[in-house]
Amino acid sequence: MAIQRAIDEANIRQRIKRWVEALCTMDLEGVMSLYAPDIVSFDLVPPLQHVGAKAKEKNWANVFGMFQRPLGYEIRDLTLTLGDDVAFGHSLNRVSGTLKNGNRTDFSVQWTACFRKIDGNWLIAHDQVSVPVDPESGRALLNLEP
Amino acid sequence: MAIQRAIDEANIRQRIKRWVEALCTMDLEGVMSLYAPDIVSFDLVPPLQHVGAKAKEKNWANVFGMFQRPLGYEIRDLTLTLGDDVAFGHSLNRVSGTLKNGNRTDFSVQWTACFRKIDGNWLIAHDQVSVPVDPESGRALLNLEP
Repeated sequence: MAIQRAIDEANIRQRIKRWVEALCTMDLEGVMSLYAPDIVSFDLVPPLQHVGAKAKEKNWANVFGMFQRPLGYEIRDLTLTLGDDVAFGHSLNRVSGTLKNGNRTDFSVQWTACFRKIDGNWLIAHDQVSVPVDPESGRALLNLEP
Repeated sequence: MAIQRAIDEANIRQRIKRWVEALCTMDLEGVMSLYAPDIVSFDLVPPLQHVGAKAKEKNWANVFGMFQRPLGYEIRDLTLTLGDDVAFGHSLNRVSGTLKNGNRTDFSVQWTACFRKIDGNWLIAHDQVSVPVDPESGRALLNLEP
């Protein structure tokens, strides 16, 4: 079992690595290959939940539409916990790049990714992307460093 | 295995139900009994991550210090996915109550809870609590309805 877990963890890490490469090159198909068709996403933007891969695809298409290529996306401190066919991971991801209006942007998001092993493939069945809220001002804190 | 999963899911739902009761009565010890000692939490307030049960306890103590009793905490649309000893759940939780200054508050948060079965007990090893961000204003959206 320990060997299978190690194989699975290496597989998930490899899939996430390829997913980040797809994000950076704005390869939407590559990005989508990590998601389960029935993903429920709590994304950075409203509404409270985005149901289904199509909704998630639209969100990434919107992001790609805002940035010049390449997008900067870095996964930091990824911690994975695996069961037999369920796993979860969390990390602090740095998003950076040049907007189409020329402005640079650079911020960190909190990311939880919950996986199911479906037909031998580890896919994200649920994820959550967010930044904390400043309790005084009610503003989203896009300037925090890990 | 299907029977064990059903037993485990019923157990997690029961634990979450008791946890909500503890939240509403501001029973800090009861609230903490659901968390693993080494929990890593991406909470609604900064910093980006809160490491360890003590940090999580401090966050709840702060919340309890802001509200009059009882606190309103309702878990809506809880979806659970279980493996043998790893599980995850997500829901849209309604927080409501009267602040100590007399103001009423009522908002929905996105919640992901990631569980490990440790010595036979399902404990939250990681969670994330957030609200979406309005992309125009940069404000945290505390007024969204599911």
